[in-house]
Amino acid sequence: MKKIFRPTKKLKNKIGLPPGTPVYMGEREEKKIKITLIDYDEKNVIKKEISRIEECYLFKDKKSVTWINIDGIHDAELIKKVGKNFGLHPLTLEDIMNPRQRPKVEKFDDYIFIVLKMLSYEDEEENVSEEQVSLILGKNYVFSFQEKEGDIFNPVRDRIINGLGRIRKSGSDYLAYSITDIIVDNYFLILEKLGDKVEQLEDSLTGETNENRLQQIHSLKREMIRLRKSVWPLREMINSLEKSESPLIEKPTLRFFRDVYDHTIQVIETIETYRDMIFSMHDTYLSAISNRMNEVMKVLTIIATIFIPLTFIAGIYGMNFEFMPELKWRFAYFGVWGIMAAVALVMILYFKRKKWI
Amino acid sequence: MKKIFRPTKKLKNKIGLPPGTPVYMGEREEKKIKITLIDYDEKNVIKKEISRIEECYLFKDKKSVTWINIDGIHDAELIKKVGKNFGLHPLTLEDIMNPRQRPKVEKFDDYIFIVLKMLSYEDEEENVSEEQVSLILGKNYVFSFQEKEGDIFNPVRDRIINGLGRIRKSGSDYLAYSITDIIVDNYFLILEKLGDKVEQLEDSLTGETNENRLQQIHSLKREMIRLRKSVWPLREMINSLEKSESPLIEKPTLRFFRDVYDHTIQVIETIETYRDMIFSMHDTYLSAISNRMNEVMKVLTIIATIFIPLTFIAGIYGMNFEFMPELKWRFAYFGVWGIMAAVALVMILYFKRKKWI
Amino acid sequence: MKKIFRPTKKLKNKIGLPPGTPVYMGEREEKKIKITLIDYDEKNVIKKEISRIEECYLFKDKKSVTWINIDGIHDAELIKKVGKNFGLHPLTLEDIMNPRQRPKVEKFDDYIFIVLKMLSYEDEEENVSEEQVSLILGKNYVFSFQEKEGDIFNPVRDRIINGLGRIRKSGSDYLAYSITDIIVDNYFLILEKLGDKVEQLEDSLTGETNENRLQQIHSLKREMIRLRKSVWPLREMINSLEKSESPLIEKPTLRFFRDVYDHTIQVIETIETYRDMIFSMHDTYLSAISNRMNEVMKVLTIIATIFIPLTFIAGIYGMNFEFMPELKWRFAYFGVWGIMAAVALVMILYFKRKKWI
Amino acid sequence: MKKIFRPTKKLKNKIGLPPGTPVYMGEREEKKIKITLIDYDEKNVIKKEISRIEECYLFKDKKSVTWINIDGIHDAELIKKVGKNFGLHPLTLEDIMNPRQRPKVEKFDDYIFIVLKMLSYEDEEENVSEEQVSLILGKNYVFSFQEKEGDIFNPVRDRIINGLGRIRKSGSDYLAYSITDIIVDNYFLILEKLGDKVEQLEDSLTGETNENRLQQIHSLKREMIRLRKSVWPLREMINSLEKSESPLIEKPTLRFFRDVYDHTIQVIETIETYRDMIFSMHDTYLSAISNRMNEVMKVLTIIATIFIPLTFIAGIYGMNFEFMPELKWRFAYFGVWGIMAAVALVMILYFKRKKWI
Amino acid sequence: MKKIFRPTKKLKNKIGLPPGTPVYMGEREEKKIKITLIDYDEKNVIKKEISRIEECYLFKDKKSVTWINIDGIHDAELIKKVGKNFGLHPLTLEDIMNPRQRPKVEKFDDYIFIVLKMLSYEDEEENVSEEQVSLILGKNYVFSFQEKEGDIFNPVRDRIINGLGRIRKSGSDYLAYSITDIIVDNYFLILEKLGDKVEQLEDSLTGETNENRLQQIHSLKREMIRLRKSVWPLREMINSLEKSESPLIEKPTLRFFRDVYDHTIQVIETIETYRDMIFSMHDTYLSAISNRMNEVMKVLTIIATIFIPLTFIAGIYGMNFEFMPELKWRFAYFGVWGIMAAVALVMILYFKRKKWI
Repeated sequence: MKKIFRPTKKLKNKIGLPPGTPVYMGEREEKKIKITLIDYDEKNVIKKEISRIEECYLFKDKKSVTWINIDGIHDAELIKKVGKNFGLHPLTLEDIMNPRQRPKVEKFDDYIFIVLKMLSYEDEEENVSEEQVSLILGKNYVFSFQEKEGDIFNPVRDRIINGLGRIRKSGSDYLAYSITDIIVDNYFLILEKLGDKVEQLEDSLTGETNENRLQQIHSLKREMIRLRKSVWPLREMINSLEKSESPLIEKPTLRFFRDVYDHTIQVIETIETYRDMIFSMHDTYLSAISNRMNEVMKVLTIIATIFIPLTFIAGIYGMNFEFMPELKWRFAYFGVWGIMAAVALVMILYFKRKKWI
Repeated sequence: MKKIFRPTKKLKNKIGLPPGTPVYMGEREEKKIKITLIDYDEKNVIKKEISRIEECYLFKDKKSVTWINIDGIHDAELIKKVGKNFGLHPLTLEDIMNPRQRPKVEKFDDYIFIVLKMLSYEDEEENVSEEQVSLILGKNYVFSFQEKEGDIFNPVRDRIINGLGRIRKSGSDYLAYSITDIIVDNYFLILEKLGDKVEQLEDSLTGETNENRLQQIHSLKREMIRLRKSVWPLREMINSLEKSESPLIEKPTLRFFRDVYDHTIQVIETIETYRDMIFSMHDTYLSAISNRMNEVMKVLTIIATIFIPLTFIAGIYGMNFEFMPELKWRFAYFGVWGIMAAVALVMILYFKRKKWI
Repeated sequence: MKKIFRPTKKLKNKIGLPPGTPVYMGEREEKKIKITLIDYDEKNVIKKEISRIEECYLFKDKKSVTWINIDGIHDAELIKKVGKNFGLHPLTLEDIMNPRQRPKVEKFDDYIFIVLKMLSYEDEEENVSEEQVSLILGKNYVFSFQEKEGDIFNPVRDRIINGLGRIRKSGSDYLAYSITDIIVDNYFLILEKLGDKVEQLEDSLTGETNENRLQQIHSLKREMIRLRKSVWPLREMINSLEKSESPLIEKPTLRFFRDVYDHTIQVIETIETYRDMIFSMHDTYLSAISNRMNEVMKVLTIIATIFIPLTFIAGIYGMNFEFMPELKWRFAYFGVWGIMAAVALVMILYFKRKKWI
Repeated sequence: MKKIFRPTKKLKNKIGLPPGTPVYMGEREEKKIKITLIDYDEKNVIKKEISRIEECYLFKDKKSVTWINIDGIHDAELIKKVGKNFGLHPLTLEDIMNPRQRPKVEKFDDYIFIVLKMLSYEDEEENVSEEQVSLILGKNYVFSFQEKEGDIFNPVRDRIINGLGRIRKSGSDYLAYSITDIIVDNYFLILEKLGDKVEQLEDSLTGETNENRLQQIHSLKREMIRLRKSVWPLREMINSLEKSESPLIEKPTLRFFRDVYDHTIQVIETIETYRDMIFSMHDTYLSAISNRMNEVMKVLTIIATIFIPLTFIAGIYGMNFEFMPELKWRFAYFGVWGIMAAVALVMILYFKRKKWI
Repeated sequence: MKKIFRPTKKLKNKIGLPPGTPVYMGEREEKKIKITLIDYDEKNVIKKEISRIEECYLFKDKKSVTWINIDGIHDAELIKKVGKNFGLHPLTLEDIMNPRQRPKVEKFDDYIFIVLKMLSYEDEEENVSEEQVSLILGKNYVFSFQEKEGDIFNPVRDRIINGLGRIRKSGSDYLAYSITDIIVDNYFLILEKLGDKVEQLEDSLTGETNENRLQQIHSLKREMIRLRKSVWPLREMINSLEKSESPLIEKPTLRFFRDVYDHTIQVIETIETYRDMIFSMHDTYLSAISNRMNEVMKVLTIIATIFIPLTFIAGIYGMNFEFMPELKWRFAYFGVWGIMAAVALVMILYFKRKKWI
């Protein structure tokens, strides 16, 4: 089962280092880091992969918007270089390298630091995995750090290159918004998958009760608890971004962030609704078990209660006493049958009155 | 079972489009779109169906109040034309076409954008269905967008045409209020239906316990969870509308919005109360099952506990040992009967003392 | 069972009428409406029943305080006349006639509109019934509207007529306070009745468990849910009244309203406490059922587990095989008894060790 | 069982009296009222019991701090005299005599009125009893009203008389603080007693399950619910006292009230923690019952399932048909034993696989 | 089992002492108190153990930052000396010596008083133990008081001595931050340990159900309740520290405190998540018990219901009546077998239809 909340192994070594020391806290991946640079203004666009971070320094003071996407956050040297050249606070560098952050926004003088959680549904494992995305929104540049290479930002890249929408006409704040927006939009896909599961489970509730169903309910609850943990801070984060009066975010862009905020609320409400439904399903499931237990018990009770007295009567006349007058009677046998039928009848009527049969 | 919260199928294609791209996100309906225009002031009223949206452009700058109702939101071209002519924000257009919005209010410079959920109870399916209504409140016009044709706004139309109440003497803000009011009033009808169901269920709680009842409780819980999800944002929405200091809403009209706000609170409180009652009913139902199980078990235990020892005694004297002195005794048989009666009596007294019988 | 939250039947006809149309929404009572007028200042007091509402018009501009109490709210004409003469807002008139309002306070320029719920415990039906009281607090008059005639306000009337306390020296705000106060004080009587029931139920928890007790718990929960729904809005209402800076309420009177507020909080806390206790009682009740089931099962298991093997042994030697050597042994019968005793003993020791007996 | 929340009997007579009428609402105690007066400044201290309240009038305008403690609140005349001479509001007098107040603070022009609940643990009845203490904090005097004589304030008296700490150097606000502090400190003693009970119960959870334990859990829950009701308003009360900018409380004393506030929070958190633990214990207890029921059922099922088929086989060969070929076979008897052993073995293996044994 | 919330034994003697009297409230440890002094500025650093508290007085007015760490809080004389020399409020001294404080921050004119809880996981006892750390943050000094000697602050000491990070360049506020930070970082280690336990328990949920598992769930719940109690006030404490506008904390250091605040939130959210998961596990566990009980009952019912009627039939023909015609029939025996097979078959088909087998 996947570890969820457990801090990674290196935690113990990390404690005690000076705050602001960038140390990679995720699971070390030895893959090379990939740096993609897109520089654009209304008229021109450049896209290239660069191998040394130094190549992006010269874009720092260009008027055009520069987007530097870095896949892989385990290279402390690289992060430090970025930090030094772009004037980032040590705590920012530390947070970029530590994938166990909560979503948050921090305003600095020269830039805004945004931490987001990107969720993706892993079909084969049937659960939701989480990746941290950090954004540095500067005056005319945006850094995006991902834990590993992914294709989720491609639509944004396409829009820049093809000049769709207003992205080419807008500044770095709109770019940061676009990235945030596509991450939050992805949550709806996750919710869609989980929604399917919830409804599937609900449809099968009336069927047989078994441990398997119970496992499914428990694991859905678990997913919801995890999701909630990822999404709740998002709300407050986007809210504080929206309310920030940083000059880095222009007023028209704020309306777009407000739109993302609305989506976040919608995600949260949907999660809460699913959660309520799963809890209701669990209750219903438990009641269904009780109902069936009741039914099983009734069958046992009816059969046992009818036949145990009859067997006793038969047992009586199976005794071998020498002096048992009834044994000699002519119609005793049939009489006993009669008595038995009467006993059974009384029992059945009793159960009828109790509405058990 | 009806899909509730699942985003529609096209979601995947939507993600990645530039924000503000109006794309229809509901289930495509090929029915033609119907546009109804009502233009009125204190003295005159015009009502007509128009076939091309361009016909309403000339009403834009007229002093009289114009209400353009559009049934059907799947025609992106039409929405775009409205947006262009009336100066609507791209995000507004996108939201109009996406029926998965939460109720909300957005203030723009020239207009207020209102999203509402219209609920209706579908008798044959026995559940509540939801439709999105978007309102654009401009200086002297109101646009209303419905997913499909409906007759819920007819009373407002009648009041305009017949000049009842103050509607003809008031501006577009009062018209927007009237539409909001009639939508919220409709919630009471839904609550009435659900209230009937809740009380019906409560009356039948004392009857027999079966899976059917459990299903009813579960499905009522489900309806309440859904309803809550629809109605909660309404409250905050009307609240923010009421608090908006937009010049588009005049002070006397604010008092009417306050009235709608009160109704919303009342709807929410009633839903919460129903919810509490249904949960209490579920608990009571569960306890009733346990009670009955207890009763079943008692019957079984009493019968089995009395007759099993007796059958054992009968079994003893049914053994075929050659040397069993009792078998020869003259009154052994009657003695055994006596012993059995005594055992049964002891058992019965024991149960009496335990208050089982 | 009493309908609680269901809107009355006429709701459907009401929807669509222009807002502010006063239409009686309660159950029609054909009894004549009774109007009582009390006019007083520090020196003089007049009390009379009037038959036509017009008789009270002339008191409108008198300096003395006038209290007009109207029992019966189904006469739209009368309400309209009052509204016209005293300058009431159409929504106020509508709310007065609709007994399904939540408690609320609305400030208007010339008057404050207060809606309250008066509770009374109906002994024969053993539940709490609810009646709406609307107050109009004007500069020197108070209107009170009740659904039906009642004697709850008599102590206030007596205090006015006999000049007890400060009521004769104070203005209309103090009169409104006195009426509110006596309504809230009544809640304590209800709580006293319900408190008796709660404690009675608690005392009987340790007794036998039956469906009847379950019904009582459920119905107490139900009453608490209802009561909570009536009382919660009261708190916020009195709070907003207290905070209103309306010139109609003078500062010394505010301290009295603060006192009512404290009482409301006390009522709410008591209801919450009862609610917690009833839920705790339900849990305890459920556990008690489980405990008893356990006990029943133990008795069954002990008896069955001891005697079933013994009966089997007896059954063995009841077989009729020709060649069964044991049957011929001299002391086989007694040996079998010995074996049986040993088996029984082992079982009993086992149960002892398990602490079942 | 002790009545908890029930308003006292005289409630019915009280309703309708003019607000501010001091009427004793507790259980009448005919004991004489005891008035203790302590007057002190940094240099001198006088302590005496006085028999007539008039004796304390002359201390009103003295510069030294005067503490008048009144044990017994049933003498309306005395309370009225105090009220008249020290300028107390009628509602204050009413509240002093009514021991059913919530803890609260009310600022008046000349004094602050404080209502507190003093808790004490009654060892013999094993529950917590509650007493109301009202304080009047004036410019240089403090009145304290207790329902009955008690020794809880003695440490404060000793500190005054012996000049310990800063009390003699401080004003009446510090005296009021000292009294409040000692009342809140007492709560910790109660919590200590209840904490012992909670842990005792927890230790015994793993033992046998019986109705007695259930009673203990229920009664602890009940105590917690009561305690919470007493302590919650205290928090908000001390908070409002601390925030009051009354000139009667000097700044240095505010820090001491802040300390009391911290204690109150600690009391509340401890109560909440106990509450959570008791609920968790109840759940664990319920699960333990289910576990044991399961175990009981397994034993029954194993025994019954093995022996019922065997008994059936024995029954077969106990039939008396004339033509039963097996009966004549030489080794039939032993063969039957073999079959029985095989059946038993199969059953046992089945249970082993199911992990029941 | 460890006492958790119980105030220590001396509580009773403490009540009544003048507020601000420093009295040791923990369990007396007779070990000598250890005082460690570190004095540093950017260039120099002194570290020494001092035996008499007086030795640190001369550092009070030095410009360099002085950190005095005192292990052991049971020496009232020492604390009083510190208090006198450094101008501490009596309540501060009292709180330092009382290890039962909640985490809190108190601003005084000359210093900030901080109370923290240091948690450590005790491996052998398998539970979390708590120690109080008090900090006095003055202009250029920090006092830290621990209940007993520990090595948790060593990394901070190393950083000072080796001049790592910015600590040597910063003031006493940064030192206070560093100490707070290392304490909060430690919480993650605790969470790691508890997280392991939670996941271990979750993995074993599907295994067998026994009392042991129940004990584990209960004790994990208990730990979570305790942890929550320790960590919740931390949040509000660090928040108030961050918001304090004390001149003692410079602006750049505030950002670091903000970082600690984020960690605290993360700790709280993780605890809440674990708590939700443990509750969900308990529910699942309970349902699993019910499921298995159901299975057990089914086996019993199937076996009993098939064989009890068959045994009855066998019993019939084991009766010894002289006149039982069937006994003489040629194929009666085989006929009976046939009837029995038919009965068994019917039963089996019935169970098949019920989906029990």
